[in-house]
Amino acid sequence: MTPRITLLAGGVGGAKLAEGLAAIYPPERLSIIGNVADDQEFHGLWVSPDIDTLTYSLANLIDRKQGWGLTGESHRVLAGLERLGCETWMSLGDQDMATHIFRTQLRHQGIRPSAIAQKIAESLGVTINLLLPTDDPLQTRVRTEQGWLAFQEYFVRERCLPEVQEVRFEGATEARATPEALAAIKTADIVLIAPSNPVVSIAPILAVPGIRRALETTRAVRVAVSPLIGGRTVKGPADRMLSAMGYPCSNLGVAASYTGLLDGLVIDQDDGADRAELEAKDLRVMTMATLMTRAEEKARVAEETIAFADTFRREREEVEA
Amino acid sequence: MTPRITLLAGGVGGAKLAEGLAAIYPPERLSIIGNVADDQEFHGLWVSPDIDTLTYSLANLIDRKQGWGLTGESHRVLAGLERLGCETWMSLGDQDMATHIFRTQLRHQGIRPSAIAQKIAESLGVTINLLLPTDDPLQTRVRTEQGWLAFQEYFVRERCLPEVQEVRFEGATEARATPEALAAIKTADIVLIAPSNPVVSIAPILAVPGIRRALETTRAVRVAVSPLIGGRTVKGPADRMLSAMGYPCSNLGVAASYTGLLDGLVIDQDDGADRAELEAKDLRVMTMATLMTRAEEKARVAEETIAFADTFRREREEVEA
Repeated sequence: MTPRITLLAGGVGGAKLAEGLAAIYPPERLSIIGNVADDQEFHGLWVSPDIDTLTYSLANLIDRKQGWGLTGESHRVLAGLERLGCETWMSLGDQDMATHIFRTQLRHQGIRPSAIAQKIAESLGVTINLLLPTDDPLQTRVRTEQGWLAFQEYFVRERCLPEVQEVRFEGATEARATPEALAAIKTADIVLIAPSNPVVSIAPILAVPGIRRALETTRAVRVAVSPLIGGRTVKGPADRMLSAMGYPCSNLGVAASYTGLLDGLVIDQDDGADRAELEAKDLRVMTMATLMTRAEEKARVAEETIAFADTFRREREEVEA
Repeated sequence: MTPRITLLAGGVGGAKLAEGLAAIYPPERLSIIGNVADDQEFHGLWVSPDIDTLTYSLANLIDRKQGWGLTGESHRVLAGLERLGCETWMSLGDQDMATHIFRTQLRHQGIRPSAIAQKIAESLGVTINLLLPTDDPLQTRVRTEQGWLAFQEYFVRERCLPEVQEVRFEGATEARATPEALAAIKTADIVLIAPSNPVVSIAPILAVPGIRRALETTRAVRVAVSPLIGGRTVKGPADRMLSAMGYPCSNLGVAASYTGLLDGLVIDQDDGADRAELEAKDLRVMTMATLMTRAEEKARVAEETIAFADTFRREREEVEA
C-alpha cells in the first residue's frame, strides 16, 4: 500500500517541497502540518502568512516571482487603509485580503482555526489535507536590540536586519495539538520535515508539546530535508538564526535542532562534507541537489526524498518481521 | 452672526443637499446628522452605506455616475470572497473595503461609532461636523411578502421589488441619541431635512426618541426639502413607500410624515398644486427647481432653502423682540 506521508512545513521553503509532493503523490495519502506561530492581526484581520503560502502554492495561485501572495495582485485596500492613517508595512494584496476577511469572520463565529484553514484550502481547490498543529494561540516572538518583536515585525517591517538574541513561542506550553495533526503523525509511514527555517518555521510546530511527543513516539520513519545549500539558506535568515540560537551554522546545526526527532537527513550535494559527522550521530544521510526553483526540481526532490525514507522504512519492517 | 445649520440626511439624495450646503456655507457652522439604520454587517465587516455616501460625497471621492461608492473602484476583494463561497450581492469596492475594515477594527476596540465616523470623515478631508443620531444598535427592517428583510436585503439584493407592507426600526425605543446630535439640533438656528426618503432615511433618525424630542422643542426654524418632483422620487422607492405607509404619495404625505416637526417645506416647482393644501396645515411653503444633478444646482437649492428658512427665522426674532 502507498505509504502515508505527513509533511511538517513552514512558508516559502516548505511550500516548495509540499508542491513537489503534491505533484507526484496521491493527495489522500498526504497531509501537511503548517506553521501558525507567524500569524498576526493586521487592521483587525487575522493574517496567517505561512498557511496562506502553502495554500496558494498548492492551489497554483501563488505569485511565483516573490514566492508568497497571490499572482496578479493589486493593493487598493491597502492604499485605502493608508489614506485612513493606518500603518501598511505588511503588504496585503486585494485578493489576499478576501482570505483574511473570510478567516476573521469565521474565527469570530467560533469556528476552529484548523477547520477554517481547511475550508479555505478546499475552496481554492487544494485536495491535500492541510492541518494546523494547534487551534490555540501560539506566537513567535523575537528578541532583538529593539526589544521583543512579533515575528512579522522582525521579518517584514525590520526585514530581518536586527540581530536575533532570543526566540520564544508564546502560548506553546499550553497549546494543545489538534487531533488531526496528532493522527497524521501517529498514523504516518513517513514524516518529512520540509527545508524550512528550523528556528522559526519548524520549531514552533515542535513547540506544541503534543506534536513533539507524537513525533518522538511515532512508528513512522522521520526524515528532514535541510534548508542549507553550501552552508547557507537560499532565502531568509535561517542560517543566521541557527547561529544566534547557539547551533552550528551547518547541517550539524540543523540536525541538532531536531535532536531525538530524526532518522534521516537529506542534505545538498554541496554539503557532502557534513555527511561523516552526521552519520556519527546515528543519522542516515542522503545527498542530492536540493535547490527547488522549477516544478521538475520540486517533484524530483520529493521523489528522491520519499525513495530515501522508504528504503529504510522497508529495511526496518524486514528487521521487525 | 451666521446662523448655525444642522441637516438631517439619508444617503444619495441627502448627500446632494449636503454637498450644496458644504459648497456655500462655512463648515464650522454646519452639522450633518446621517442615518445609521441601513448599516449591515457583510463578511464580518460593518458597512454603513448612508454615512459612507455622505462622507465620500463631501470628500469629493464619490462615484458621480452611480451616486454612491468611491470613484475608480475595483472589486478584487469581492471576487476573492466569491471564490471562497461567500454571497456577494452587496457591491463593495476595494477602496471602500478599507473603510469597512477600518470601521470594524475600531468598533472592536470599543470606540463609539460616531467617533469612528468622524475619524473617517476627517481622514478623507471632510471639515463639516458629521454626526450619528445614536451610537446604539438601530436597524431598519422591511416586511414584504418574503417576510422581514434587513434593509440592504430589500434595497440591494431584492432591488426594492417586493411590495413593502411594514417598516420598523429595531432598537429605536432603547436607542439613546448622541450628545453631539442633540446639541446640534438644540443649538441650531436652522434645522434642515434633506430630500431623502422620509420613510427609511429620515424616519429612522427621528425614531430615536431623544432626536425627535429635540426637534420638537428646538428654537430652530425647521425646514424640509421634499424628495418628490412631479409627485415622484428622482430615484429610489420613497414614493411607493409613502403609499405603503398609508401616506398620500405627494407632498402632503411628506409633510404628514414630519407632522409636528416642520415649520416650512420646500417643494418642487412642478408640485405647486400642493401649496394651498400644505399652507392650510400651517406650513410655510416655497417652490423652486429642486432637481440637483450638477454642483451649481446643489449650491442653488442650498442657498435658496437657507434664504427661505432665514426669512421667517428673522420674522420670528422680530416678533419676539
